[in-house]
Amino acid sequence: MAEYDFNQLKALFINCTLKKSPRTSHTRGLMQHAIDLMEREGVDTQIVRLVDHDVPPGVYPDMREYGWEKDEWESIFNMVMAADILVIGSPIWLGEKSSEAKKLIERLYAMSGKQNEKGQYIYYGKTAGCVITGNEDGIKHCSSSILYALQHIGFTIPPQADCGWIGEVGPGPSYLDEESNAINTEFTNRTLTFMCYNLMHMATMLKNNGGIPNYGNSVPQWNKGERWAFRKT
Amino acid sequence: MAEYDFNQLKALFINCTLKKSPRTSHTRGLMQHAIDLMEREGVDTQIVRLVDHDVPPGVYPDMREYGWEKDEWESIFNMVMAADILVIGSPIWLGEKSSEAKKLIERLYAMSGKQNEKGQYIYYGKTAGCVITGNEDGIKHCSSSILYALQHIGFTIPPQADCGWIGEVGPGPSYLDEESNAINTEFTNRTLTFMCYNLMHMATMLKNNGGIPNYGNSVPQWNKGERWAFRKT
Amino acid sequence: MAEYDFNQLKALFINCTLKKSPRTSHTRGLMQHAIDLMEREGVDTQIVRLVDHDVPPGVYPDMREYGWEKDEWESIFNMVMAADILVIGSPIWLGEKSSEAKKLIERLYAMSGKQNEKGQYIYYGKTAGCVITGNEDGIKHCSSSILYALQHIGFTIPPQADCGWIGEVGPGPSYLDEESNAINTEFTNRTLTFMCYNLMHMATMLKNNGGIPNYGNSVPQWNKGERWAFRKT
Amino acid sequence: MAEYDFNQLKALFINCTLKKSPRTSHTRGLMQHAIDLMEREGVDTQIVRLVDHDVPPGVYPDMREYGWEKDEWESIFNMVMAADILVIGSPIWLGEKSSEAKKLIERLYAMSGKQNEKGQYIYYGKTAGCVITGNEDGIKHCSSSILYALQHIGFTIPPQADCGWIGEVGPGPSYLDEESNAINTEFTNRTLTFMCYNLMHMATMLKNNGGIPNYGNSVPQWNKGERWAFRKT
Repeated sequence: MAEYDFNQLKALFINCTLKKSPRTSHTRGLMQHAIDLMEREGVDTQIVRLVDHDVPPGVYPDMREYGWEKDEWESIFNMVMAADILVIGSPIWLGEKSSEAKKLIERLYAMSGKQNEKGQYIYYGKTAGCVITGNEDGIKHCSSSILYALQHIGFTIPPQADCGWIGEVGPGPSYLDEESNAINTEFTNRTLTFMCYNLMHMATMLKNNGGIPNYGNSVPQWNKGERWAFRKT
Repeated sequence: MAEYDFNQLKALFINCTLKKSPRTSHTRGLMQHAIDLMEREGVDTQIVRLVDHDVPPGVYPDMREYGWEKDEWESIFNMVMAADILVIGSPIWLGEKSSEAKKLIERLYAMSGKQNEKGQYIYYGKTAGCVITGNEDGIKHCSSSILYALQHIGFTIPPQADCGWIGEVGPGPSYLDEESNAINTEFTNRTLTFMCYNLMHMATMLKNNGGIPNYGNSVPQWNKGERWAFRKT
Repeated sequence: MAEYDFNQLKALFINCTLKKSPRTSHTRGLMQHAIDLMEREGVDTQIVRLVDHDVPPGVYPDMREYGWEKDEWESIFNMVMAADILVIGSPIWLGEKSSEAKKLIERLYAMSGKQNEKGQYIYYGKTAGCVITGNEDGIKHCSSSILYALQHIGFTIPPQADCGWIGEVGPGPSYLDEESNAINTEFTNRTLTFMCYNLMHMATMLKNNGGIPNYGNSVPQWNKGERWAFRKT
Repeated sequence: MAEYDFNQLKALFINCTLKKSPRTSHTRGLMQHAIDLMEREGVDTQIVRLVDHDVPPGVYPDMREYGWEKDEWESIFNMVMAADILVIGSPIWLGEKSSEAKKLIERLYAMSGKQNEKGQYIYYGKTAGCVITGNEDGIKHCSSSILYALQHIGFTIPPQADCGWIGEVGPGPSYLDEESNAINTEFTNRTLTFMCYNLMHMATMLKNNGGIPNYGNSVPQWNKGERWAFRKT
């Protein structure tokens, strides 16, 4: 491990389970393996269970200005901004990501009008992946939706940035249920491992590179009329 | 432009229109702006119109072994392997990417069992984006599907790697139709420009970095029992 | 109108905007045209704005048993059960339906273990459609997701059961903004009209037919071993 | 079975496997159970394997007018028009329906400009479902896409109109592989059975009803200015 030093990286894991603490979250169960792996590699990790916080839906930075009594979003947003790596975990319900995952994307998106000091969208220079669990079907559909949204607002998606576990088709045991024997699913373990390392490598590359250069993607420069090599003809 | 030298980059554009040459492809019309931009920045570009080639559907490298008379896939695959950047263009039909785009993904996927010299999936070290056109609705749905598939098989997706143009809701003029006045859609021009630069920056970063390190994502090493920092407990 | 008597029908419209009352909901603006049309045809209609109610996320009938202080879901569920027609309205955020729409689907799904008096899933015999608004892109993606979920839990989906309005690609005015001139979008008006009539016709057919016969789709009979004409060989 | 007489119904099954005959199609394996069930109930069934026919991609009724040498679509379209029930079968590749399934949807869509004798879209009065197979993940995503497209062009989707089989997460045996023991998956058998009966009941209802009334959904009447109960205010 000498060759790769991930000690300067920070990773934030946001668990979008529908279950409040202290109920058992199978999604958290699988995310924990990614957290542990990164911790062993020296990454500073944090985890948030979104449903435990008073975060209303909405597309503004502070929903208290729009009729909601409480809004704890700012503190979570600050954790996102402090992180190099964001991993969203979601359970599958009816083949799609949870409503908490969609709410998280809406709130992240609501900040994307902000720019970093280079005039780029605020999440440029960060990298992201996702962890999906269910007992039946839908890992790729959920991942597709989550990873698309994240690249759209500025995150870089490295190769194979998603992983997940589902059981046999139809209702059945969940990830942490003993009878699922899910921890021995080598496919899930391998894709989780590759995801973690690809996120750490990409975060390192982006950090060493000072993020993504702003030549060709600066919003204020575009607004001032700069077009770089784009021509209408 | 002195600071950024994109002269060593190669980009392949694959147009997944359903229309054979020489019919007008509106998707090609929009792709051309990305091609021209990259050419002006020194990138060596190539374009393929998939539907002009005898490429059957299937999930094997050579479909002539499975009942098809012709299969020109190998030459297209070789162009993909020679490129640093892959851009898939697709029209929207009934809200989703074209059947040609899905066929392309199936054929790319069929090669993903191959590994590079580092034991990684064959497309590691490359970056990808997409260009979508329609007259109505569905850019994000198409992009989500295409970009997900590409990262799944090894491509890196930089921020804002998709762009597109659609007209008003319901049937109407297409991108190259004069009455659409589409070339003056600043939103499309900006997202196309940002996509191009992000692809060029990411390709440069990956090239300078020698691709993505294979510590933690080597298939043969996993198969031999290496687990790096992954543990089942 | 003499030939078709829709006076015995009830329709429930659930608006899944992210905006609490009294903020303007553009989704409500478009839904209102469907409500008015049905009212003129004699249908008894009701509308609920989900975000105005204390309905937590979750997949159980009453989330107060799972750590939430309040849960007003039961009253909304009772309105669904009283209706022949359900129309879900959703805004588009980042190309997909709102988190409120996903939450609604999760809560509807949570009741689907219940059976009607024929041993069928509880929503059998009802019909459903959707109304989507945004300023940019994604009507079909949202509709696809919502209508799939509804048929999965027992609703019948008649032809062309979705409608929507979006403006030009990129940010722009919304449905009710005067400068959008959206009320004059004939495509939207036509698809909304056809959706409404198809829902009323299908609801009438289902009502006259006493719902869907339970020969071949009764859960308790399947559980007792009845297989009708299904054979494993 | 005396009560329900399905003898007057016709069902068309279109298998969108990527494999040409005589290669084994697992999708066909699962579809066969639906075919057999309907046959036992007296339905007249037919099956087409799309990839065995020269059907080019495109969005016109006859692609020979657009640069293709052969086009066997018309004969398949005639079979669709003769059927009361359409069932599309698709394998899952990278989490989505096959390119053959997308091509089929494009060709069906290309005919939707045609109207029936009532001035409705051509597929009104028919009902549809789907059968999905894979060895890993994605039944609901494929079904959502296929069923949405079919309702959009005029088919009625009854409750629970999709079914499918997948194995454990990751690569593994397919439906007809003996080691999958798939025929004993009760979840798949039940959902397939319910789908078949719901299609037969819905087809019967539509037939008895003379299709869907054209009050409120006639294209030529709309074009002539009829708005029924729709108002812009």
